Amino acid sequence: MDCIFCKIIEGSIPSKKVFENERIVAFHDIQPAAPVHILIIPKKHIPTMNDVTAEDDALMAELFAVARQLAQELGIAESGYRLVNNVNSDGGQVVYHLHLHLLGGAKLKGLN
Amino acid sequence: MDCIFCKIIEGSIPSKKVFENERIVAFHDIQPAAPVHILIIPKKHIPTMNDVTAEDDALMAELFAVARQLAQELGIAESGYRLVNNVNSDGGQVVYHLHLHLLGGAKLKGLN
Repeated sequence: MDCIFCKIIEGSIPSKKVFENERIVAFHDIQPAAPVHILIIPKKHIPTMNDVTAEDDALMAELFAVARQLAQELGIAESGYRLVNNVNSDGGQVVYHLHLHLLGGAKLKGLN
Repeated sequence: MDCIFCKIIEGSIPSKKVFENERIVAFHDIQPAAPVHILIIPKKHIPTMNDVTAEDDALMAELFAVARQLAQELGIAESGYRLVNNVNSDGGQVVYHLHLHLLGGAKLKGLN
C-alpha cells in the first residue's frame, strides 16, 4: 500500500492523533487551514466518497459521530465548525483515502 | 414552525427539487456558490450537527448516499465535488435545519 493515510493508521508515519477506535482514526492536519483542523478517516481504505457502498453506512454515520464528539472535546461545538469531504480533482481531494475535515476555531470563509 | 427548510419540505415555499423520499429532500440552493450547488436535508427538523444523536445514524448515512447518487446523476462524480456541513456561527450556518451542501461543476477553491 502506498497510501499515506494507511501508513498513519499503521503508525509507520507519525501523526498527532486525537481519537482512535477499531474503525476510525482522527489526527491534526499537518497543513492546517484553520486554528482547529482535524482529519477523521476510516481505517478501511476507501479512496473517495464515490467508492462508498451501503455496507459502509454505519462507518459513514460514525465519521459524523466522531466529528461531533471531537467538536465538543476541542471546544468548538458552540462557536461553530465545518465538516468537509473533498472528492476528486474539482473537489480538491489530495489524498485518495476518504477523509472528513473538521475545521473551526475562527470564523470560516464562504463556501467557495 | 418558522423554519424555511421545513416550509420547503411541506411545499409552502417553492424549491427546485432534485430528489425526495420519505426521509430526505434535495434541492438547488437559491444562491449557488458553484455551478452545481444542491442542499440535501433530512425531513426531520434537526437544527445542527450538534443535535444529531445515535438514533439518527441511518439518516446521516443516507445523506451521504443521496449525495453520491446525485453526484452521479448530475455528472460531477468523476470531475469531483465537495460535501460541506456548516455548524453554528464560525461554520457560517445560515439556516438552522441541518443540511449538507453538494458543490461541483468547477474547480473549487481551498478549504478556507
